[in-house]
Amino acid sequence: MDVGFIGLGAMGSAMARNLIKAGHTVRVWNRSPGPAEELAREGAVAVNRAADAAHGDVLVSMLADDAALRAVLFAGGVLEAASPSLVHVGCSSISVALGRELARAHGERGVSYISAPVFGRPDVAAQAKLNIVAAGAADAIARAQPVLDAMGQKTWVIGAEPYMANLVKIGGNLMIASAIEAMSETAALGAAHDIDPGKMLEIYTSSLFACRAYQSYAPGIAERRFEPAGFKLKLGLKDVRLALEAGDAASVPLPFGSALRDAMLTAIAFGDGEKDWSALAEVARKRAGL
Amino acid sequence: MDVGFIGLGAMGSAMARNLIKAGHTVRVWNRSPGPAEELAREGAVAVNRAADAAHGDVLVSMLADDAALRAVLFAGGVLEAASPSLVHVGCSSISVALGRELARAHGERGVSYISAPVFGRPDVAAQAKLNIVAAGAADAIARAQPVLDAMGQKTWVIGAEPYMANLVKIGGNLMIASAIEAMSETAALGAAHDIDPGKMLEIYTSSLFACRAYQSYAPGIAERRFEPAGFKLKLGLKDVRLALEAGDAASVPLPFGSALRDAMLTAIAFGDGEKDWSALAEVARKRAGL
Amino acid sequence: MDVGFIGLGAMGSAMARNLIKAGHTVRVWNRSPGPAEELAREGAVAVNRAADAAHGDVLVSMLADDAALRAVLFAGGVLEAASPSLVHVGCSSISVALGRELARAHGERGVSYISAPVFGRPDVAAQAKLNIVAAGAADAIARAQPVLDAMGQKTWVIGAEPYMANLVKIGGNLMIASAIEAMSETAALGAAHDIDPGKMLEIYTSSLFACRAYQSYAPGIAERRFEPAGFKLKLGLKDVRLALEAGDAASVPLPFGSALRDAMLTAIAFGDGEKDWSALAEVARKRAGL
Amino acid sequence: MDVGFIGLGAMGSAMARNLIKAGHTVRVWNRSPGPAEELAREGAVAVNRAADAAHGDVLVSMLADDAALRAVLFAGGVLEAASPSLVHVGCSSISVALGRELARAHGERGVSYISAPVFGRPDVAAQAKLNIVAAGAADAIARAQPVLDAMGQKTWVIGAEPYMANLVKIGGNLMIASAIEAMSETAALGAAHDIDPGKMLEIYTSSLFACRAYQSYAPGIAERRFEPAGFKLKLGLKDVRLALEAGDAASVPLPFGSALRDAMLTAIAFGDGEKDWSALAEVARKRAGL
Repeated sequence: MDVGFIGLGAMGSAMARNLIKAGHTVRVWNRSPGPAEELAREGAVAVNRAADAAHGDVLVSMLADDAALRAVLFAGGVLEAASPSLVHVGCSSISVALGRELARAHGERGVSYISAPVFGRPDVAAQAKLNIVAAGAADAIARAQPVLDAMGQKTWVIGAEPYMANLVKIGGNLMIASAIEAMSETAALGAAHDIDPGKMLEIYTSSLFACRAYQSYAPGIAERRFEPAGFKLKLGLKDVRLALEAGDAASVPLPFGSALRDAMLTAIAFGDGEKDWSALAEVARKRAGL
Repeated sequence: MDVGFIGLGAMGSAMARNLIKAGHTVRVWNRSPGPAEELAREGAVAVNRAADAAHGDVLVSMLADDAALRAVLFAGGVLEAASPSLVHVGCSSISVALGRELARAHGERGVSYISAPVFGRPDVAAQAKLNIVAAGAADAIARAQPVLDAMGQKTWVIGAEPYMANLVKIGGNLMIASAIEAMSETAALGAAHDIDPGKMLEIYTSSLFACRAYQSYAPGIAERRFEPAGFKLKLGLKDVRLALEAGDAASVPLPFGSALRDAMLTAIAFGDGEKDWSALAEVARKRAGL
Repeated sequence: MDVGFIGLGAMGSAMARNLIKAGHTVRVWNRSPGPAEELAREGAVAVNRAADAAHGDVLVSMLADDAALRAVLFAGGVLEAASPSLVHVGCSSISVALGRELARAHGERGVSYISAPVFGRPDVAAQAKLNIVAAGAADAIARAQPVLDAMGQKTWVIGAEPYMANLVKIGGNLMIASAIEAMSETAALGAAHDIDPGKMLEIYTSSLFACRAYQSYAPGIAERRFEPAGFKLKLGLKDVRLALEAGDAASVPLPFGSALRDAMLTAIAFGDGEKDWSALAEVARKRAGL
Repeated sequence: MDVGFIGLGAMGSAMARNLIKAGHTVRVWNRSPGPAEELAREGAVAVNRAADAAHGDVLVSMLADDAALRAVLFAGGVLEAASPSLVHVGCSSISVALGRELARAHGERGVSYISAPVFGRPDVAAQAKLNIVAAGAADAIARAQPVLDAMGQKTWVIGAEPYMANLVKIGGNLMIASAIEAMSETAALGAAHDIDPGKMLEIYTSSLFACRAYQSYAPGIAERRFEPAGFKLKLGLKDVRLALEAGDAASVPLPFGSALRDAMLTAIAFGDGEKDWSALAEVARKRAGL
């Protein structure tokens, strides 16, 4: 297939590379040109304007946040340039509000749009093992399926409205942040009682909590090691804010979300915004004077 | 070995039964006589007074809470009756404060005491698959090991002070309650956005959260089915209180613990105290007017 | 003085009326024309476009929120039409972010701008007894002082940057909302213990809490009477959001603010958004099953 | 009247002194003898055992907490020694649970008991300006009225069950703590925006919040001055715990109470337990990295 790809950060580059490997023609664009040039050496076609990536069968967008996606899609003219037969696959983690707005904007132009945010870090993306949550019209998802299959291990279809996948992604990140905070509070409680947090968390993550959300973060929390960041705390805060905004719009209070936001702000205030979001554990310790 | 067992609730009976199966001589006692009589038919020796269970090699106690354990151990004369060679294996989920007090009280009488609370529900206990967290003097744990092996799949030794195992159990329950609340908030957020909570939770529990703490509760939350109770909400509140008390004693604030306590009180106020503690999900829904 | 006034809601109309009484020439504008016509009968000059109110010595704006103020000032061309000698007195309760943006935008056009949000409800405004918090360049405040004096009992100058007054207003509303929640929780605690909330609150508001923030709301809370609304709960939520946003921008966690937001969302979910914001008391009762 | 007085801390001594001034015969007792000797020089009769203070018309008790009151009343034999015509006036700030227990215990012995906790610090007590909240049988309150009148400016009768006055006291302290936290969060929000907290709080406490609960603490918060302590933070935490316990017993969640407890624990962890409870303001600053 003829696939455009815009947004070549650590995640996007890994995903685009898998599309090349799968034999697709991949037209790539990034705000700064370096990543596109690198992928061009691996077989991609680097295009000069984002809009030039929107002429094929599928366009994948993987940008940092609402503002970046808006800038490219609207101000960058991508939406206007899109061919009528295009399926736009939005993989960015964006707000529910923007998810709804994009569905309307594509609909008005007769362009197919599905939302397909992903779970997984860059190393998982590199192995094409992402979990992809898709939402949108069934036929559009079907047309994009070969592209999704080249990037992920499984596509979960959650519903017919694109924003739904955005919410599932936001909710998933709320759950991961909650897992981190739960471990952080428990580890601080243990440490204050002279118990080795590493041993304590190992018990949990070897039994009831033997899953990736816990096992990925427990060692760093126990060893108080938060660099290099797998996912930066300031981005985690962005995602918790998205959850709170989605809750606000639908009158859904999220007490854990509120507690997370407060703790993350303290982490930012302490200068830990660039560290891994499991640095929340340091807030739990400081609150206890540890 | 000659093993006494006091406290024959659903958990205790299952655990005692496995001791019988493993070939130990098991003297059983319970406040109400029914369960002891039943185990007697399976090979146990029913004794008339709790103190009569304290004459052998090991005494296992599995009582509901601090008050019940105090009543039997102190008022019931068990501690006074204990033979000097006994190892008392305390499996009850009790407070850190009582854990410390028991260590002192046994020490003063020269009786060995280890704390060994367990993770797992009655069905897990029946399969002898409990995760047991043990703390106390290494030689005492070693002497009790055959008994622990007959009841659980693994013994995790956390430290030399018995209260440490109590804290690990309390922390584990805080983490499970946090997992339930995180799913509850996320499911409410989804439901308010017309997303099927069952589908949504399935995505999480099939990927990042593919572990027992989540998989046990997700279906009930999605289907709003909280009976029969695997673990009653009012007991869950008891355990969250134990976490908050342990935090209070060591000046460790637990924002998630506080939010859980508040939500659980609302569940109790709504009359859901006897339901499974995953009925927290209904509080999340009611807060959102769902 | 020649004073323009835009935004004639209950507050704005009362304030504009006092300017007329004080002998100023008052040019009034409102999105819907009714209120301007009514004031015209009392001596004001109704103008057809908001921009026509910006030609005199002082322009007072009193609009509902950020969006309404933006619409009039920017899209409505008010800022472009402003005479260079004008002092714009912004009385609306707006975000700190917009407060900063307005200072920049006026500065670029060489128009003086001070922020002057007010404390007091419409009845207080009618008596010209408002407490006005002003911030901006000292000379601009001095030029606007006769206008401020005609509307309020006292002007509190907080600093040289206009946004500072916005923050003081936002902080004041956070404190009022906190007072309401504190009374609500305490009254619910009393009611659950068979204590008459009215008697209970009377003790507090006759002694340590003998001030307007408490005395205005206690009777309604005790009698569970929240209509007519003095200040609508949905507007209160707007202001709590402004506090949280200001906190977010400066990494200041506000646990009370977070708790208030969660409780207010529940009030909205229960359909109480149009009631007085003291209807928070019903959330406290419902949480307790009362 | 013949009045016994047990518990001669800063508050108790000031209150007993006013009873002497009012012409009553006052028998005083304290655990450490110094304060009783001092009052003896001013006209009181120092007795050797607490029980000796329970023979007259009225016994006033003013002890630090549940444990201290229990120790004197039960273990100290006061209740057993009480003459049948005695009215015991319990002024201590105690739990609702102990309030209920005392009513039962006095009832069983046929001794009248009213609860009469007070609002006011030692300087207010010295001026006989306390606000006294009384609960109990009307005739018992009537008999004690001359004693109450000598100590306070007003007696507020809240109900027929003694525990009710304890709850009103606990609720009042929850409200004061909430006022402190609201000022603390707002001042931190201001400080992070370069606004002088002193000016900011002055605006509030000169207008909507012109009452003692705010005016007593605002200057110290603004100046970050928390010593000498008017009321120690660790005692404030004790009272917030009493509110949470009362809420727990009646299934009343108190989100502000929970947030206060968490913040106070952090203050204790930071070593501020002996400072005035307005040192909560430092927690708000530290959370924001200020």
